[in-house]
Amino acid sequence: MSQLYASLFYQNEVTEIFSDRALVSYMIQAEVALAQAQAQVGVIPESAATAISNIAATALDQIDFDALAMATGLAGNIAIPFVKQLTAIVKQNDEDAARYVHWGATSQDILDTACILQCRAAMTHVETLIQQCYRTALAQAEQYRSQVMIGRTWLQQGLPITLGHKLARWASAFHRDLARIEAMKTRVFTAQLGGAVGSLASLQNQGTAVVQAFAAQLQLSVPSCTWHGERDRIVEIASVLAMVTGSLGKMARDWSLMMQTEIAEVFEPTAKGRGGSSTMPHKRNPVAAASVLAAANRVPVLMSSLYQSMVQEHERSLGGWHAEWLALPEIFQLCAGALERTLDVLQGMQVNAENMQRNLECTQGLIMAEAVMMALAPHIGRLQAHHLVEDACKTAVAKGVHLRDVIAELDQVKDLFSVAQINDIFKPESYLGNIQDQIDAVLQEAKGEAK
Amino acid sequence: MSQLYASLFYQNEVTEIFSDRALVSYMIQAEVALAQAQAQVGVIPESAATAISNIAATALDQIDFDALAMATGLAGNIAIPFVKQLTAIVKQNDEDAARYVHWGATSQDILDTACILQCRAAMTHVETLIQQCYRTALAQAEQYRSQVMIGRTWLQQGLPITLGHKLARWASAFHRDLARIEAMKTRVFTAQLGGAVGSLASLQNQGTAVVQAFAAQLQLSVPSCTWHGERDRIVEIASVLAMVTGSLGKMARDWSLMMQTEIAEVFEPTAKGRGGSSTMPHKRNPVAAASVLAAANRVPVLMSSLYQSMVQEHERSLGGWHAEWLALPEIFQLCAGALERTLDVLQGMQVNAENMQRNLECTQGLIMAEAVMMALAPHIGRLQAHHLVEDACKTAVAKGVHLRDVIAELDQVKDLFSVAQINDIFKPESYLGNIQDQIDAVLQEAKGEAK
Amino acid sequence: MSQLYASLFYQNEVTEIFSDRALVSYMIQAEVALAQAQAQVGVIPESAATAISNIAATALDQIDFDALAMATGLAGNIAIPFVKQLTAIVKQNDEDAARYVHWGATSQDILDTACILQCRAAMTHVETLIQQCYRTALAQAEQYRSQVMIGRTWLQQGLPITLGHKLARWASAFHRDLARIEAMKTRVFTAQLGGAVGSLASLQNQGTAVVQAFAAQLQLSVPSCTWHGERDRIVEIASVLAMVTGSLGKMARDWSLMMQTEIAEVFEPTAKGRGGSSTMPHKRNPVAAASVLAAANRVPVLMSSLYQSMVQEHERSLGGWHAEWLALPEIFQLCAGALERTLDVLQGMQVNAENMQRNLECTQGLIMAEAVMMALAPHIGRLQAHHLVEDACKTAVAKGVHLRDVIAELDQVKDLFSVAQINDIFKPESYLGNIQDQIDAVLQEAKGEAK
Amino acid sequence: MSQLYASLFYQNEVTEIFSDRALVSYMIQAEVALAQAQAQVGVIPESAATAISNIAATALDQIDFDALAMATGLAGNIAIPFVKQLTAIVKQNDEDAARYVHWGATSQDILDTACILQCRAAMTHVETLIQQCYRTALAQAEQYRSQVMIGRTWLQQGLPITLGHKLARWASAFHRDLARIEAMKTRVFTAQLGGAVGSLASLQNQGTAVVQAFAAQLQLSVPSCTWHGERDRIVEIASVLAMVTGSLGKMARDWSLMMQTEIAEVFEPTAKGRGGSSTMPHKRNPVAAASVLAAANRVPVLMSSLYQSMVQEHERSLGGWHAEWLALPEIFQLCAGALERTLDVLQGMQVNAENMQRNLECTQGLIMAEAVMMALAPHIGRLQAHHLVEDACKTAVAKGVHLRDVIAELDQVKDLFSVAQINDIFKPESYLGNIQDQIDAVLQEAKGEAK
Repeated sequence: MSQLYASLFYQNEVTEIFSDRALVSYMIQAEVALAQAQAQVGVIPESAATAISNIAATALDQIDFDALAMATGLAGNIAIPFVKQLTAIVKQNDEDAARYVHWGATSQDILDTACILQCRAAMTHVETLIQQCYRTALAQAEQYRSQVMIGRTWLQQGLPITLGHKLARWASAFHRDLARIEAMKTRVFTAQLGGAVGSLASLQNQGTAVVQAFAAQLQLSVPSCTWHGERDRIVEIASVLAMVTGSLGKMARDWSLMMQTEIAEVFEPTAKGRGGSSTMPHKRNPVAAASVLAAANRVPVLMSSLYQSMVQEHERSLGGWHAEWLALPEIFQLCAGALERTLDVLQGMQVNAENMQRNLECTQGLIMAEAVMMALAPHIGRLQAHHLVEDACKTAVAKGVHLRDVIAELDQVKDLFSVAQINDIFKPESYLGNIQDQIDAVLQEAKGEAK
Repeated sequence: MSQLYASLFYQNEVTEIFSDRALVSYMIQAEVALAQAQAQVGVIPESAATAISNIAATALDQIDFDALAMATGLAGNIAIPFVKQLTAIVKQNDEDAARYVHWGATSQDILDTACILQCRAAMTHVETLIQQCYRTALAQAEQYRSQVMIGRTWLQQGLPITLGHKLARWASAFHRDLARIEAMKTRVFTAQLGGAVGSLASLQNQGTAVVQAFAAQLQLSVPSCTWHGERDRIVEIASVLAMVTGSLGKMARDWSLMMQTEIAEVFEPTAKGRGGSSTMPHKRNPVAAASVLAAANRVPVLMSSLYQSMVQEHERSLGGWHAEWLALPEIFQLCAGALERTLDVLQGMQVNAENMQRNLECTQGLIMAEAVMMALAPHIGRLQAHHLVEDACKTAVAKGVHLRDVIAELDQVKDLFSVAQINDIFKPESYLGNIQDQIDAVLQEAKGEAK
Repeated sequence: MSQLYASLFYQNEVTEIFSDRALVSYMIQAEVALAQAQAQVGVIPESAATAISNIAATALDQIDFDALAMATGLAGNIAIPFVKQLTAIVKQNDEDAARYVHWGATSQDILDTACILQCRAAMTHVETLIQQCYRTALAQAEQYRSQVMIGRTWLQQGLPITLGHKLARWASAFHRDLARIEAMKTRVFTAQLGGAVGSLASLQNQGTAVVQAFAAQLQLSVPSCTWHGERDRIVEIASVLAMVTGSLGKMARDWSLMMQTEIAEVFEPTAKGRGGSSTMPHKRNPVAAASVLAAANRVPVLMSSLYQSMVQEHERSLGGWHAEWLALPEIFQLCAGALERTLDVLQGMQVNAENMQRNLECTQGLIMAEAVMMALAPHIGRLQAHHLVEDACKTAVAKGVHLRDVIAELDQVKDLFSVAQINDIFKPESYLGNIQDQIDAVLQEAKGEAK
Repeated sequence: MSQLYASLFYQNEVTEIFSDRALVSYMIQAEVALAQAQAQVGVIPESAATAISNIAATALDQIDFDALAMATGLAGNIAIPFVKQLTAIVKQNDEDAARYVHWGATSQDILDTACILQCRAAMTHVETLIQQCYRTALAQAEQYRSQVMIGRTWLQQGLPITLGHKLARWASAFHRDLARIEAMKTRVFTAQLGGAVGSLASLQNQGTAVVQAFAAQLQLSVPSCTWHGERDRIVEIASVLAMVTGSLGKMARDWSLMMQTEIAEVFEPTAKGRGGSSTMPHKRNPVAAASVLAAANRVPVLMSSLYQSMVQEHERSLGGWHAEWLALPEIFQLCAGALERTLDVLQGMQVNAENMQRNLECTQGLIMAEAVMMALAPHIGRLQAHHLVEDACKTAVAKGVHLRDVIAELDQVKDLFSVAQINDIFKPESYLGNIQDQIDAVLQEAKGEAK
């Protein structure tokens, strides 16, 4: 992707983790862990492991990235030319140790393990971002728990809700996302070490011990068996990010709709150079929403690529594995970018209570028809109340007047309610059902996660 | 989808659960639970709930499905015309009770809850199928744990593995899938009840109690808040099925490749009318694989549709919600179909050990070059061993002879090993690394799940 | 898909073409054409072709669809059991002719050719629907060519346009779609006949003549070579439908946004039972839009399935071919359904000019800031005009007054323009650029297509 | 995407066209054309256009790309900060001219037009690559027109074909792709110029003339109306590339399957550092195939993103438009990369005729059963021939002998054919149907395109 778009779609820390340089540093980390594990088990000399470990800190600066990029096209993956370069670097210091670089491993072992290390590191950032979004959404839900606005279904005005309810529902999605991430960590952050076909044949009877030591070095879980060709872990990681991104897309859709000039209820925070237009001074482009919505368009299809790529041949595949390299980092980056943008909006969103009130009024009381019916029903029966209100609505629409004025004129109503009581019935805040209970439940649910 | 293809792609029980008739029966179940919950809380008369419950058993046969289908196009969902029909049916028996049908609910409450009930029922079948596949794969892994075959990477012969190792890896994927399903159940099998905009406004201060009673009636979990517009539960269910289907696709790719006429190592079970050809008597079409691979092509894109559809507007959406109705049932059906076909193959697969042996021989010993090197290394040093074997390989290829014959002629080798020892080194079963440990680990991991 | 949803998402004629019954009838048509072509070339006896042709009319009613459905699961495709049944049916009348049914063909020949016949038939309906949409959009563009409304970008009010311009742009998309369909017909509506591996081996030296006669019988183009494994024709057909569906999705998004309660400019036509709500009398659900948007969510992912399925193995593939059977018919049905729904909306759309006017006013003249600047620029210079208007906008926003009132008070402006002139400058219809030219160009472009 | 993978997945020239630097250069080109068009029509002073044009050559080096990248995140697109920078650059030379930079245009005008210029430039390379692939496939088809090999269906051996037939079929796909590209050029390579909402309001009555002059400057077609929100042109361009990539994926699948160690019929060309393994000397990784298959996994999902993104709001959209920026360049790059890799393989593919012969023999004559039946049929009747051959096949399989040996022993056969004749019947090259006609037709079809 163009570097020009990074600030629009990505998030710095996560992008850094998936940079070429960082990828190579994770590969070095995997090679060092391998050498140390093998020394520990007695497969290679302790001195070789030490030499390889010592080189680690400086190796990254000695890697010739251009040569690496060139060779990758022929080799079919980065690890093959990388191992050659790393071996040469070690050799400069310790010719003997150089023979033990990448001992018994296949290139996919290093690439998969490095990938898992990247995922774990990036997931930490993603989790932090989700937690921040969660906490912010909770705080805003509490702040706006009584801020009445119209609820909309099918893009039509329905009945009143509060902005806090909307935010609580969003918060609740973050809660589930955090639970999903937590639940999968042990399952997915797993070392990969199998050698050419998954048997670790060249380590003979020491394979199992080396895998365990290798995983321990990297604080990854030990796989019951190699997973070169069984890619569900990679896909599971991405699938959770895709759910997160989908939820963010929903939020962005909502706030971009609320930012419409004619609605004007909630706005992205303002900033210099952001979304304005000098010749169209009324414009306030939902730039963050555009970015999040683009991510929510793109991540689903990248997921499709990953699910497709699970169909891998035999012990190690061609094509399917390669497709992962393109899709997974981008899913992380888009998800993190969308989170950062959403966090920004959640934190700085500008709420226009006046316009919310105005929009509640725009049907001239029709949105309160059900409330009126419910108020009348105990007195005159539900059916009778229904007919009465239905007629009143027709009258209000036909005459272009407020429903309250029609209702207030009806003798049946006058007999039951005072003008003040009628006004109360027509107040949106009187007809919010169990919304406060729901907000409380979401806040309650957060105890433990959002300290 | 054409009914003609159902036996090829689908699975009967799961297809039945997503039939029109079953969908309506789940909707009836939801309406009955709603009435009972509301009676329990005191929102509607006990007698009304009884009348509605009593009608349930026979209502399904009274539904006019053609009228329902016709009305759905105008209403935009099934629930609106369904509620009309159900109300009319109840009215025939109890005019008063009819007024309490669907009380306070919105059509999406019923459709979402019915959908969750379908998912739960279908997931039971899917879980059973996965468990059967898992147990069968484990049993076959044990049976073939020492059946040597060539391991293949990038579609090229690599080093030897055993068929049991391949099966153990497949089994391990089923193990993770079962864990995923278990982990999400409480989170996703959740009731939906929110009324028009999620506030249950018309239930006034009884909403929360009704939701709890409603969920209890259906043995679903209680949502902290309504989720009309936050669709991650639906997507999570499907995403696990998509991972399952991807893993099945991998297996089908493997066995279809092993069935190739020139490879001929593992075959789908034979059956009359299955995959044969009278004028091409040597053909044995991998029909089950074709079906599973088609599912593994299709489910990923249906997932993409679901992830996209998470971007829903406001309190209840248009379009995005509708797209779910088409994607989710099909993902279930394709996954279940692929599981059934895979189970059939796992149970009845025909293994040709002779051809496995033949294929191990087809490089004339080159696949054992690394094993030879490892055997020589302790005696003559790794580097020296490498050069010696590399030269021997070149000679073997150039002369078109077996590598063993070239190696056995070398003085350096003769000095170290007898002919019998050399023959042993060239036996694929001598070079299997920690494969048996891995198989044991997978079998061990199964204790508890696969009783 | 559930039959319950057919009226919501599909279109009757096209759905009929892809019904099981119709599929079989197209397969019969292909078998008859094959027999006739072979008789013509002298491969089979004229009497056999006659017998096979004679049976065609009644064969469809003799097919046992349940048995066909059952056998398909084992055979891996419909054609194998179909040919068995057809042969048996012919045999009842003419034992000799029965031996010549499906002579030299492979099942894929019949399925592919039947598929192309379905596509051609369905495309006729799709073309008709597009032409109707096109003509209607053109007529509406003409009718509303001067109906001013606000143009919106990024969901924000921009500058004025006319409804006719929007409709002309939509019409222009239909124009391109029709051109795309026309351009591909000869390329894609092509017969398939290759026998087992594409060589028509069993026809020996008569293969080429038979292919030509076969294609001529069906009025399909003759392929230069068989295309069992090269599926670009199938994908091209679908890709054009996907572009059509995408454009319809754009229109549905637009009109559903314009139907928002707060915007209320354009509405789907009303109909009994359509999108209304008794307790929310103000609601007017965009049911047609929901259906079209669901199609526009789904067709793209089905396209992804088709593009993926192009990766077919060797002479005839497994899995990839199968995936087509599920995707292609549904793309046709969803596209036709979306067209029908869009046509309905284009024909019956209700335009609320009053609300368009109201919405043009909702920024209190800010949308006309650029127009004012352009009017001042020739007199006081563009830079000076820019500053003056920018300041005036700030004042208008700060005071909450109409920009016109601020502008009209400025001495610099008073010197240049009368009150009437200022009012004219602020009229949205004065600032429509070359919109009329564009509408004319679209109308002009239509001459030839939309007679 | 990681730069490390560029040599594996991309193609240099096309990647260069979509680089940040090139994108900005195309934007400069669009701005210059705009100024010149406006000077021509008399909208801006000739001197301003000259000043802007003069700056073009050096402006690219003065652009601060880091600042651009930073500002894009806030502005929501590149064009806004780009225009600011460009204006400042012009201002350094000619303060007056600076006021006329980007006159009357909206950022999307420049981005869309630049995008079309990129597409046109990249398409030239793609076309050249397709033509090279086409010519090479044709030449190889001719060279191998009689090279017999087994045809395979469902991954099973079927009947013989020739390698030339396979190549001719591939060539035929390239032919159709070239026709598709040619057919769409006028339709899709179209200028975009509409101003804020597509009306070119600020150009008053000169809009139409400016659009025409602008398109003429860039040798693009003139749109009948603006297409800011109607994105079918963008999608059509990509859809053709996706069809190309799908066909390439099919070829890569084929050759990677033919490269299997056990098949070993066709190989990717060798090169130092390419796909070999020192410890597994028999390995020959299909690296080019892996790359092409990864592209064929990824491009379909990127297409899905583009089709989805057609659903754009009103006059100019948010999110949908943004998603294009990520998908379209990558589709071009992956398609071009896949073409380059395929061309390399087509040009340098190594054919092992010996192994093709060996594989033809591996069923011990069963693949010729149909040929034998066809040879006997004229003498003893088709039914009798069928029974006789069927029995012989069973015998051959049961005894593990060659079908020819069984057939040759049968009295009925001996009476009809000499041993030499029987041998001839069993020659695969005797049973190739109309394959040579098909190859000729493909070669014939090429006259005109592949000079």
